[in-house]
Amino acid sequence: MFLENKIPVGILGATGTVGQRFVQLLADHPWFEIVAVTGSPRTVGRPYGEGVLWKVPGELPAHIAELIVQPTEPNLDIPGNPPIVFSALPTAEAKEWEPQFAAAGYAVFTNASSFRMTDYVPLLIPEVNPDHTALIPQQQAHYNWPGFIVANANCSTTSAILPLKVFQEAFGLEAAIMTTLQAISGAGYPGIASLDIMDNVVPYIGGEDKKLENEPKKLLGSVVDGELTYADIRLSAQANRVPVIDGHLASVSVKLSRPVSVAEAIAALEDWEPAPIYAELPSAPQRPLIYRHEPDRPQPRLDRDVENGLPWIVGKVVECGVLDIRYMALTHNTLRGAASGSVLNAELAVAQGYIKTGAMVGLTAVPA
Amino acid sequence: MFLENKIPVGILGATGTVGQRFVQLLADHPWFEIVAVTGSPRTVGRPYGEGVLWKVPGELPAHIAELIVQPTEPNLDIPGNPPIVFSALPTAEAKEWEPQFAAAGYAVFTNASSFRMTDYVPLLIPEVNPDHTALIPQQQAHYNWPGFIVANANCSTTSAILPLKVFQEAFGLEAAIMTTLQAISGAGYPGIASLDIMDNVVPYIGGEDKKLENEPKKLLGSVVDGELTYADIRLSAQANRVPVIDGHLASVSVKLSRPVSVAEAIAALEDWEPAPIYAELPSAPQRPLIYRHEPDRPQPRLDRDVENGLPWIVGKVVECGVLDIRYMALTHNTLRGAASGSVLNAELAVAQGYIKTGAMVGLTAVPA
Amino acid sequence: MFLENKIPVGILGATGTVGQRFVQLLADHPWFEIVAVTGSPRTVGRPYGEGVLWKVPGELPAHIAELIVQPTEPNLDIPGNPPIVFSALPTAEAKEWEPQFAAAGYAVFTNASSFRMTDYVPLLIPEVNPDHTALIPQQQAHYNWPGFIVANANCSTTSAILPLKVFQEAFGLEAAIMTTLQAISGAGYPGIASLDIMDNVVPYIGGEDKKLENEPKKLLGSVVDGELTYADIRLSAQANRVPVIDGHLASVSVKLSRPVSVAEAIAALEDWEPAPIYAELPSAPQRPLIYRHEPDRPQPRLDRDVENGLPWIVGKVVECGVLDIRYMALTHNTLRGAASGSVLNAELAVAQGYIKTGAMVGLTAVPA
Amino acid sequence: MFLENKIPVGILGATGTVGQRFVQLLADHPWFEIVAVTGSPRTVGRPYGEGVLWKVPGELPAHIAELIVQPTEPNLDIPGNPPIVFSALPTAEAKEWEPQFAAAGYAVFTNASSFRMTDYVPLLIPEVNPDHTALIPQQQAHYNWPGFIVANANCSTTSAILPLKVFQEAFGLEAAIMTTLQAISGAGYPGIASLDIMDNVVPYIGGEDKKLENEPKKLLGSVVDGELTYADIRLSAQANRVPVIDGHLASVSVKLSRPVSVAEAIAALEDWEPAPIYAELPSAPQRPLIYRHEPDRPQPRLDRDVENGLPWIVGKVVECGVLDIRYMALTHNTLRGAASGSVLNAELAVAQGYIKTGAMVGLTAVPA
Repeated sequence: MFLENKIPVGILGATGTVGQRFVQLLADHPWFEIVAVTGSPRTVGRPYGEGVLWKVPGELPAHIAELIVQPTEPNLDIPGNPPIVFSALPTAEAKEWEPQFAAAGYAVFTNASSFRMTDYVPLLIPEVNPDHTALIPQQQAHYNWPGFIVANANCSTTSAILPLKVFQEAFGLEAAIMTTLQAISGAGYPGIASLDIMDNVVPYIGGEDKKLENEPKKLLGSVVDGELTYADIRLSAQANRVPVIDGHLASVSVKLSRPVSVAEAIAALEDWEPAPIYAELPSAPQRPLIYRHEPDRPQPRLDRDVENGLPWIVGKVVECGVLDIRYMALTHNTLRGAASGSVLNAELAVAQGYIKTGAMVGLTAVPA
Repeated sequence: MFLENKIPVGILGATGTVGQRFVQLLADHPWFEIVAVTGSPRTVGRPYGEGVLWKVPGELPAHIAELIVQPTEPNLDIPGNPPIVFSALPTAEAKEWEPQFAAAGYAVFTNASSFRMTDYVPLLIPEVNPDHTALIPQQQAHYNWPGFIVANANCSTTSAILPLKVFQEAFGLEAAIMTTLQAISGAGYPGIASLDIMDNVVPYIGGEDKKLENEPKKLLGSVVDGELTYADIRLSAQANRVPVIDGHLASVSVKLSRPVSVAEAIAALEDWEPAPIYAELPSAPQRPLIYRHEPDRPQPRLDRDVENGLPWIVGKVVECGVLDIRYMALTHNTLRGAASGSVLNAELAVAQGYIKTGAMVGLTAVPA
Repeated sequence: MFLENKIPVGILGATGTVGQRFVQLLADHPWFEIVAVTGSPRTVGRPYGEGVLWKVPGELPAHIAELIVQPTEPNLDIPGNPPIVFSALPTAEAKEWEPQFAAAGYAVFTNASSFRMTDYVPLLIPEVNPDHTALIPQQQAHYNWPGFIVANANCSTTSAILPLKVFQEAFGLEAAIMTTLQAISGAGYPGIASLDIMDNVVPYIGGEDKKLENEPKKLLGSVVDGELTYADIRLSAQANRVPVIDGHLASVSVKLSRPVSVAEAIAALEDWEPAPIYAELPSAPQRPLIYRHEPDRPQPRLDRDVENGLPWIVGKVVECGVLDIRYMALTHNTLRGAASGSVLNAELAVAQGYIKTGAMVGLTAVPA
Repeated sequence: MFLENKIPVGILGATGTVGQRFVQLLADHPWFEIVAVTGSPRTVGRPYGEGVLWKVPGELPAHIAELIVQPTEPNLDIPGNPPIVFSALPTAEAKEWEPQFAAAGYAVFTNASSFRMTDYVPLLIPEVNPDHTALIPQQQAHYNWPGFIVANANCSTTSAILPLKVFQEAFGLEAAIMTTLQAISGAGYPGIASLDIMDNVVPYIGGEDKKLENEPKKLLGSVVDGELTYADIRLSAQANRVPVIDGHLASVSVKLSRPVSVAEAIAALEDWEPAPIYAELPSAPQRPLIYRHEPDRPQPRLDRDVENGLPWIVGKVVECGVLDIRYMALTHNTLRGAASGSVLNAELAVAQGYIKTGAMVGLTAVPA
C-alpha cells in the first residue's frame, strides 16, 4: 500500500510520557503527519518545544517543537474523514473527552484504559484480533457518533496475550494463570520512587491484576455480525513491579482444550502468522512473534529492543505439572504495550478502509 | 531448656559464603560453640581469619579468626555424642564427604542439596515437619552409620513452603503453581555477573524449577513408623532471578481439597502455631509466620530482615480465578533459606534428644 | 553521666522521613523522652500512628503511635528549661517557625538548612567543633531569645568534614577539592524518580555544591570570646547522585600548610580523638573515625551501618599529584548526616550544661 | 574519500567482549572487511559463531559466524600492505603477541594497555593528537619492524581527555584533578559481581588511577621530528565503579596557564573543531564534542548512546574555588573508550596514508 500524501493527525495529551512517544513515533511516519498537539492549561498557547519536558531518547524533532499547543477540545483543525487523533490522555480526562471527540467526528486511537471494556469499542491488537474493527460501525450506530474510539490493551495484558491467542487457535484455551514482572517505565513519570523499588520488588500495581483478568476475555472473544462474544476462559493474575527500566515479562501457565506436547506448543508459536493485511502496515515488524529456544530467554534488557520494540519474545515452553503448558513472554511496555500499539491500530484501520481522507491519494482500502 | 555448657561443633567448608554465615550465627550461639573449621587446601593450616575473605556484615569474631583451618576429613576433634558438624560444602564435595562423616559418627546438618531427596535423610524445616527427625534411627540402621545427615531445603522451596503446609493441614492441598522472584545472593559469590542482572530479569536458575517441584512433596509428606510417604500433590514452578540483594519472593496459586474463602485462608495462616517444642529453640523467632494485610506486601527490602531474617512474611491472599487461592510469601534466602535453617535444625535435634553429649549438663530431651 | 529521669522533648515535623528517624532514635533514648509531636494540618488531631506513613526499618513504637499530633506552634507543653524540640521541618517552614520557638524559650536542634550559616547559630558536629556551643549565649543576647537554635550540617558536608578537621589541627588546611557520590535517600521521599537514577548518575543536586563550599568554613572556624571567625580555606565541590540507597561518599584532595607524607596523614587520622566530653554522650560510637587500610574501602553498602551509622569511615589516603593528599570518606546520610547528628548535638548541649531541667536529677554539667 | 574495494582485516582475540565489539563495528564497515578472526585454543578450528558467547546487542552477522577461528599467530592470510589486525587481546597476551605481529609486518591497532606508554608507539585519539602517527616510521626504524603498533587510550582516560586538550590549546594547561564514576561494562565479562556493586560504589579499579595520571601526559604531548615530548602537567586521579551499565563520567578540576572566565571556557569547547582530515573518517560522528548547558548533564543513561556512542558529552563548566575551572565529561566506555576508538585510529592511519594496499583502489592518501 502506498499513500501519495500523508494523513494529518493530532495528539491529545502530547506533553506527557506517552504523548512524547506518539510524537517520536509519528515524527517521521510514512502515513501520518502531526498537525496538532494538545496539552494542559499550563502549556496551551506555547510552542510544544517549550511546554514539554522531553524525556524519550533522541532529540525532539524541530518541526514538531514549533507546533503551538492547543487545549484538548474537539475543534482541532485536522483535515480528513474522519480526522484522526491519538490519545495519550490520563484516564479521567480520557473518560471526559474521548467520547466528545468521537461525537464530533474524530477517529480516536487511545492508549487510555477508560473505554477498553466498553461495549462496541474495539480493544484492538492487530496481531490478535484484527477483525474486531468490525465493531466500529456498530459503535457509531449505537452511540450515534460520526467518529469512533479504538483502544489498545494494557501493557501487561499485551505481554501475555499473543501466545494465548496462538494456543486458543491451535488447541483451544480454557484457563491461564499469569504472574508478571513489570518495568518501572510502566508507571509513567515520575512514577515509582527510587526508594521504593531499588533492591526491591513491589508485588502490587493498582488495578493491574483485574485488567489482566478481564482484557484477554475481550481480546480473545469473537465478533460475529458486529456483536462481540467474550472468550469463555478462566484467568488469574498477579502483577509485580521489578527494578527493570523497560520490558514487561509474563510467566504463564495454561489449560488447553486437549493434551498438547511441548513440541506441538512450540511449533504452534513458530508456525503462527498474522493476518495477511498485517504485512501492509508500515510499523509492523518482520517477525511479530520470536520464539527463543535458550533456557534463559526472554530477558528484558537483551530482548526488549529487537525490531523497534514491537515483537513478542517468547520462550521457556515446558510442561506444567498442574495445568498443561507453561511459557514466558516479553514485550516492550512503552512501545508495543503503549504508543506503538495505538499507531499500529490506526495503520490497521487505514488499511481496512475505516479512514477515508481527501489527503490520501492512492490509498487502496483492503478489507481484512 | 537451659544448657550449662555449650556443645562444641565444627563447620565444614567454613570459608565460603554459607560457611561464613554459619560462623556468624554460631559465634555467640547460646547452645553451640565453634571448635573446628575446615576449608580448601589453599586455606588449610592457616588461621581462619587469614584464609577467609570475610563478606558478611559485621566483623569476624576474634576467637574464631584464630582457629586453624583443617582439611575436610572426618577426624576432627569435636567432643560430643554424636559430634556435630554444620556443612556448607559445595554439592560435589558434600556428596563425597558427608556420608563419610556420618559413617564416622558425626551428626551432619547440611545446607547442600546432595542428599535432600535421599531415602531416610530428613529434609527438615522445624516449622513444617519437625516429626521427620523420626527418620534418623532408620537412616542409621539402613546405612549402618553411627552418625547421620539432616538436610535443609532449597532456599526457593523454603520461601513457598510454610503456607503450603498450613493450607495442607487446614484444608487439604492438591496442587500448587509457583513463580519465584529470587535474590542474587542465592547464587553465592561471585555468583551472577552484574552485567547479566542489572536492569534485567533472568528467567532461569539451573535446576531450581525441579527442586521447587520435588522438595515440597517430601517436606509435606508423612512419617509413620519411620517410613516416609511423599505428599500426593501436583506442583509446577518457574524460577526467576531479579535485581534484589536478599530475599526470595514466591507468587503461588493453590488447589485445595475443599472450597475455602479468602477469610478462612487468612485465618488459617494467622492462627497457625508451630509444634510446642519450637518455643525451646534459641534461634526461633517470636512470630515464625507474619501475615501482612497491606496490598503491597511482602516486599524483599522492607520485610527480609524482620526478626533476624527467620520468619515467613506472607500476604496477598486472594481468590484465584483458575485454582482456589493465591498468596505471596517471602523469606530471607541466606538466613532462613540457608545457614539459619540448618542451625534451627540442629537446635531441634538437640531439643528432641537426638544429640547426647557430656558437655551438655541439664539438657532435658523433649520428644517432638 | 547519669540522668535519673528522662528529659521530655518534642519533635517538629514528625511525620516526614527525617521526623520518623527522630522518632526511631528517641523512642528508647536513655536521656530523652518524646512527649510531643507536631505535623501538617492533615495529621493534626489524629494519633501519630494513624497520620504517619511509616517508612523507616522496624516498627513504630506503640507508645509513640498513641501521641496526638499537634500543630507546629510554640505552645507545646514540654517541661524543661529550656524545653527541647528537634526540628525535622522543611526549609521554608523551618525558616518561619524555628525563630518563633527560640523566641518562646525552646532549645531547637534542627536538621533544616535555614539557619546553618546565620550569625551566632552554632553549626555543630560534636566531633568537629564542640566548643562552638559557646555561641549560644551570644545568640540569645543578640536576638533577645530565651531559647536558641543549634543546627547540624548538610549530609554531604558531613561526609567530608571530619578528616578535614583532623588535617587542619595536625598540619594546617589551605584548600580542598571535593567530589561526592550521594545516596538517593538524601533526597527524601518520594525524592528522586526511579526512571531518573536507575542505571544512571545525576551530576546535580540543587544547592548542594554551595553548601559543600560554605559550611566547612563555619564548621572549621574558631570561636573566641563568643565570636566566630570563619576558617580561611578555599573549597570547590561537585555533588553527584548515584544509585545507592544510603551512604554519602566523598572523594577529596587537600592542600595542607606543610608537606605531609601519606604515613603521617594516616597516623593523624588514626591517632585522632574527640574531646573528652564526647565519651559521655550516650549515642556516641566507640570509634567515631574508622580508618580502613584496604584499597577498596570505604564502600557504602559494606560500611554505612557500622556502629549504628554514626562513624566516619575513611580510607584511600594517597599522595595527590596536584595538591597534597587525597582521601575518601563515607557517612550514613540519614543517620550521622541527619537525625542522629541532631540527637548527638542535643546530648552535647546537655552534657555541657546548656539545658537545665527539673526533670533531670543528677545531671552533672561538664564544660567542654 | 572513497574506497572502491574494502580493505581486509583480522581481529585478534575476537571471542571476548571487546573482540565482539570489533566484529559488530566492522561487520558492515565501509572501508574494512573482516577476513580472519583468532581465538583461544578452546575455539580454534571451530566456526566463530559456535565458539563465541555473543553478548553485544543485536545478532551476530551470518557471514562472520562462518569464519573459522585461527590461533593468534602472525601467519594470518590477510592481503594488504601492511596487513591490518585489530587486537582485543588480554594484556598479557597482547604483550607477548603484538610485537610479533608488528615484526611480521602487520599494522596492529590495539585496545590493550601493554604498549600504551612504550616509546614510539602512538597513544592515539584522532580528535586529540592525530599528528602522533608521525611516530610510526620512528617506531619501525627503532624496533626494526616492517609493521607497527598503534594503541588507543584507557576508557577512563578517554572520558576526561578531550576537554583537557581543548583547554590546553586555548589557554595552556598546568594541572588536573580527576574523579571518575565508571560503568560496570568497563570491567569486561563476567567482570564485577552483582553482589559487589548493587546498591554500592567501589572506590577502586586496579591500576586505573595510575593510567589516568600517566596517559594524558603522552596524549597531550607534542611530536616534533618524530620525537615525542610529554606534556608538562600535574595530574591526580581517583577512579570509582558505580552501578551503571555503560558510560564513564569524569569530574575534573583544571589549573590553566592564565585566568579564564566560565564563558571563555565554554566558548573554547563549543568552538573547537577536529583536524580537517577527521571529516574523512567514516566512523567520525557529526559532533565529536557536544556541550550541554543544562545543570544536570551529562548523564550516562541519557547521553551515552548519542551518535553511536562516539562523542564526548561535556557540561557543568563552573569556576573552581581552588584551581581554575571544573567540568564534567562523559564517553561511552566500550565504544568511544574501546573498540570504536581503535577503529577510528585505523581509519585515520588509512586516511593519512600509512596503509597502502592493492585492495584499495582509489584511496587518496591525505596527510594530516
